[in-house]
Amino acid sequence: MDIARIEAAAARLEGHVRRTPLLSSHALDAIAGRRVLVKAECLQHTGSFKARGAWAALSALPEEVRANGVIAFSSGNHAQGVARAAQAFGVPAVIIMPSDAPALKIEGTRALGAEVVLYERAGGSREELGARLAAERGLTLVKPYDEPEVIAGQATCGLEIAEQVAEEGVREADLLTCCGGGGLTAGIALAVEAKAPGLCVRPVEPEGYDDTARSLAAGRRLRNEVEAGGLCDAILTPTPGEITFPVLARLCGPGLVVNEAEVLRSMALAARHLKIVAEPGGVVALAAALFRGDEIEGDAVICTVSGGNADPKVLARAMALEV
Amino acid sequence: MDIARIEAAAARLEGHVRRTPLLSSHALDAIAGRRVLVKAECLQHTGSFKARGAWAALSALPEEVRANGVIAFSSGNHAQGVARAAQAFGVPAVIIMPSDAPALKIEGTRALGAEVVLYERAGGSREELGARLAAERGLTLVKPYDEPEVIAGQATCGLEIAEQVAEEGVREADLLTCCGGGGLTAGIALAVEAKAPGLCVRPVEPEGYDDTARSLAAGRRLRNEVEAGGLCDAILTPTPGEITFPVLARLCGPGLVVNEAEVLRSMALAARHLKIVAEPGGVVALAAALFRGDEIEGDAVICTVSGGNADPKVLARAMALEV
Repeated sequence: MDIARIEAAAARLEGHVRRTPLLSSHALDAIAGRRVLVKAECLQHTGSFKARGAWAALSALPEEVRANGVIAFSSGNHAQGVARAAQAFGVPAVIIMPSDAPALKIEGTRALGAEVVLYERAGGSREELGARLAAERGLTLVKPYDEPEVIAGQATCGLEIAEQVAEEGVREADLLTCCGGGGLTAGIALAVEAKAPGLCVRPVEPEGYDDTARSLAAGRRLRNEVEAGGLCDAILTPTPGEITFPVLARLCGPGLVVNEAEVLRSMALAARHLKIVAEPGGVVALAAALFRGDEIEGDAVICTVSGGNADPKVLARAMALEV
Repeated sequence: MDIARIEAAAARLEGHVRRTPLLSSHALDAIAGRRVLVKAECLQHTGSFKARGAWAALSALPEEVRANGVIAFSSGNHAQGVARAAQAFGVPAVIIMPSDAPALKIEGTRALGAEVVLYERAGGSREELGARLAAERGLTLVKPYDEPEVIAGQATCGLEIAEQVAEEGVREADLLTCCGGGGLTAGIALAVEAKAPGLCVRPVEPEGYDDTARSLAAGRRLRNEVEAGGLCDAILTPTPGEITFPVLARLCGPGLVVNEAEVLRSMALAARHLKIVAEPGGVVALAAALFRGDEIEGDAVICTVSGGNADPKVLARAMALEV
């Protein structure tokens, strides 16, 4: 994918997604031992960067195709991004979600006018279900990450980061991304390759779900042993994407891994010092910036806070920590 | 005060304060029954709009005066704004705070390099204490609201609101502000008088501390019966300012009053739908937008979320609510 495709997506997104702020706090700088610049995508429409890729994908469809509606598989953030874009275009959206997705995300998807179809993770073949619904109704599948227009949409976050960190005087730094299937990471890596080549993009994952870090080290796509159950629901993808992984292998530095205690502490610190609500899967990059500093180079580190759709109980649990 | 003074403050603030985003959520629109546009000043440096007025005040001092240092009285947000500006200018700051100020705010002020002097609300004469310290050390007092340069600094928030709501296509609406001494309210009212005259600025206060609403109705400055103890610590000012009140009386619509239950629910809703942390005193305007809709005119309402320095325990209490 070339930068022209990313810039075309940025033009289509203009006025439909937010330019999210780059935040910082002296208190976080002190914890990390270096400047920490936080791209707050939790403040994006629908509470995550997924609104970008979804808008890019739907706006790229021919009108007569889009009019039949779209379908997506998602545990919640891609779901809400697709539902919002479909609602804005006035077309139907069917979202297939696991029955154990956070209630907040299921409700949020329904509130955006989508038809939510729940399936049981154990035993249920969501692909068959999706294929049948798509065929019956003429729906177009919007994949969460292995789709060039989605990657181009997420890349617009990288265009903004490139501009915003330059305004802060930062030219060389590690740029840590929250990584599931790799759509955001690949998109940002492609954008900064063109616009801020001094930044080194590095994916961050939770312990036990570090398929991307291990795959980057091995040079080939590996799978996680478990597929669900962790705190970081948004990024528990089984293996890197077919399209995203070659991009990551070409452009990214080594992956980083954080544990759930670090994730909860980072949620509390983000609320306390940045005044933002981050969800577990959306805060892994900040956790690495704060607590894995010995694996990072440079005077500054940049990280995405990629989503804020935190379950209120999990947020309350994080807020109860002494940080 | 004329708009030239506000624009001069804006020029001095450029690059030193954040242009905070105007946020919104379909879920909040649905609760309010109209569009709700939220100026998220909790995302400002130090977690509140006070960073604006403090920077404006310190940057307006002659260099040789500023070099001796500054002193301020504050329960915490003005404190942090002044401490940050003093630190950036490399001058001493002494902040006199009540001993019952939230620990988060006392710690935050110290972390910004200020010398914090605590006094007991009951019986302690903070004015005498301040006057003695100021005289001994040649410190300049930076008042929290009854100071033209501070008002000009807070007014820059109004300049941004005027631009941002115009981009959203809103020309006529109530603009609800969180109101203590009236510095933010007066500043915003002066800015929108010049830049967005279709907006009607209306101060919002908590029950029991509605001195401004009653004073506006009476046409003269009235006092609250109690002076401390409420949830909304940031805005428990005893009476409208001498300089701010005439501005409010000339430019503002009627005040609104909300209760503490509405404040806590609004904190939870802001976290859930906007992904921001708001403190009690910083969320009264949003509470009025959401729950006092019958006192508001128009298809849209604008409100400030003026601060995010929430005590973690209070935030956890709010998050535990079913909203």
